Amino acid sequence: MALPTRELSDDERLDWLRLARTDSVGPITFRGLIGRFGTARAALEALPEMARRGGRQRGLTPASLADAERETAAVAALGGRMVALCEPDYPEPLAAIEDAPPVLSVLGARDLMSRRSVAIVGARNASGNGRRIAAKLARDLGAAGLTVVSGLARGIDAAAHDGALESGTVAVVAGGIDVVYPRENEGLHRRIAEQGVILAECAFGIQPQARHFPRRNRIISGLSIATIVVEAAPRSGSLITARMANEQGREVFAVPGSPLDPRAQGCNALIRKGAILVQSAEDVLDGLSPMLRTLEPARPAGFETPKTFDETAPTDGAAAQSQVLECLSPTPTPVDEVLRDCQLSAPMVFAILLELELAGRIERHPGNRVTLT
Amino acid sequence: MALPTRELSDDERLDWLRLARTDSVGPITFRGLIGRFGTARAALEALPEMARRGGRQRGLTPASLADAERETAAVAALGGRMVALCEPDYPEPLAAIEDAPPVLSVLGARDLMSRRSVAIVGARNASGNGRRIAAKLARDLGAAGLTVVSGLARGIDAAAHDGALESGTVAVVAGGIDVVYPRENEGLHRRIAEQGVILAECAFGIQPQARHFPRRNRIISGLSIATIVVEAAPRSGSLITARMANEQGREVFAVPGSPLDPRAQGCNALIRKGAILVQSAEDVLDGLSPMLRTLEPARPAGFETPKTFDETAPTDGAAAQSQVLECLSPTPTPVDEVLRDCQLSAPMVFAILLELELAGRIERHPGNRVTLT
Repeated sequence: MALPTRELSDDERLDWLRLARTDSVGPITFRGLIGRFGTARAALEALPEMARRGGRQRGLTPASLADAERETAAVAALGGRMVALCEPDYPEPLAAIEDAPPVLSVLGARDLMSRRSVAIVGARNASGNGRRIAAKLARDLGAAGLTVVSGLARGIDAAAHDGALESGTVAVVAGGIDVVYPRENEGLHRRIAEQGVILAECAFGIQPQARHFPRRNRIISGLSIATIVVEAAPRSGSLITARMANEQGREVFAVPGSPLDPRAQGCNALIRKGAILVQSAEDVLDGLSPMLRTLEPARPAGFETPKTFDETAPTDGAAAQSQVLECLSPTPTPVDEVLRDCQLSAPMVFAILLELELAGRIERHPGNRVTLT
Repeated sequence: MALPTRELSDDERLDWLRLARTDSVGPITFRGLIGRFGTARAALEALPEMARRGGRQRGLTPASLADAERETAAVAALGGRMVALCEPDYPEPLAAIEDAPPVLSVLGARDLMSRRSVAIVGARNASGNGRRIAAKLARDLGAAGLTVVSGLARGIDAAAHDGALESGTVAVVAGGIDVVYPRENEGLHRRIAEQGVILAECAFGIQPQARHFPRRNRIISGLSIATIVVEAAPRSGSLITARMANEQGREVFAVPGSPLDPRAQGCNALIRKGAILVQSAEDVLDGLSPMLRTLEPARPAGFETPKTFDETAPTDGAAAQSQVLECLSPTPTPVDEVLRDCQLSAPMVFAILLELELAGRIERHPGNRVTLT
């Protein structure tokens, strides 16, 4: 059951926002719920009973309509709006990833998101040369008609946004759309809100915390046909973005540097692992040419509900749930494996997993895998 | 007819040297002549008549025995000796290349040449960092049991030799083995002659000229299972060495650098074209591990005469020669194509080509191709 792309009514969008803001409802569960119940409203109504069946101790109360209205109004007051995953304004490449945010807060020139985008990310403690390279890549790729996506961090991110300010840039922030972080990027944040796009998955007003950054990074890579890394230390956040781009089937580029420069180690390692070495925007355009030759971007899967969630199924009793729980551990287990190991129908397993997740007892991971929490 | 590897008598070695030093006899022709006539002596005797049949205006006089004796004595006086392609001391990987030098002058610890070698080459105007990287790579690869080969130029070459002086290094010079070039490397030249190996294809006493350098570079790469480039400008000599390594079926590694550093452009371009990015000796050893796992180096083809030269054949007359000449042009033509296009037997075509080369009318190129001169 694939939901067609369509503009939601304001009431429907509020339902989507409530469901997205409800405790234990991650992006993958969100898709499962819409797939199972058809609408966010119906899912909201079914949630408390499902969570109870999943074994949740304290009741699961969906986010309130009042909160959803308040958040929507606050975003609107800044000049922004909420965009749901099924709506035409939602960026197509992002909709194609498995754990796409169900709802985004968006501020600024939303039409920029309909163009093809590339991400430029890198070290916060970048060198002057690294920042110069990032700004020039951004400027040149912007001149070639691409939107430049980054994370509005210090260093490489800021330089990339700055280079693409005229041509069009999208900043994906880790906290709420109104929260300027880091402080020193206040001016840039304001200029991007005026000339480009600021985009957030987190609720309005939320201060970014450590756990938000990797989740934010999947949006940066997910928005983009390619991610370019400019200066990155080993085990840095930029390498997480590169890994996610790779998992999302997007191209990864890296700017090399001297082996004696610690900030080049991450990029050099990426190149050794297969990222394309980049010296200039031309190298990026060369690497992307098969993709760029397609004039009209093919509408990707978009909001296509995974087939596995298509059927509704009642779950009956503790025995089946125990069977599923026995298959799981804190190490990610593919749902396919659970299906193979349980003597239960697929719809039954999916329903039980959904309930367990709403009960906060399991967690979803990309690649259709789950862990016990 | 494959010649077995064997130690030559002093007289035979003098014949080899005379044939190698004879005008119009390049390395590929040399193999052809040995293949056709069995010994260097027989080839020397046949040369003048062959050159005449090929249409050579002024007679072809083989290099004299006196000159060969003088050169051999001069090399011996320095403590060195001549090594012919068929002899056990001749480095095996070099013997395996199509245009291996028929005779080398060798000074120093010849046993170093029996170990596996890697070449480290790069810019003459190298940066301090580049030189440090080259020296460290050389030291670490030396510690891993590899001989380090380079060209005794300023910059990267000198640093590589310096780093590998203790563990073992081979310097391939472009001129005669006695000619120190550049002057500033005099001390290094002397230390390598004492602790390592100095090796030359050119005759004793010859000052290196521009055309000698690319020919020297094929020896550097040919001696080595892999060539590592550290800092190289676009269109520099080091990139020629890398290309030759690639043509010889050897691995190519390159040390990356910032796109803003002109000395990194050549290496970065090599990596884009498929060279393995190297940050440390470990990266090189990783890249070579399939080769290094073979404990005993397989004896390569060595001095195996190409089959195409196995038969002797008289050439009869101008008609056949004209047919061959009509197939040729200043653009390299594969000998296979000449064979296909001429209505002549293969041994006949080979004999005519040999005569034309001795007459100075055609030139041989790797890949079994020839051009009209």
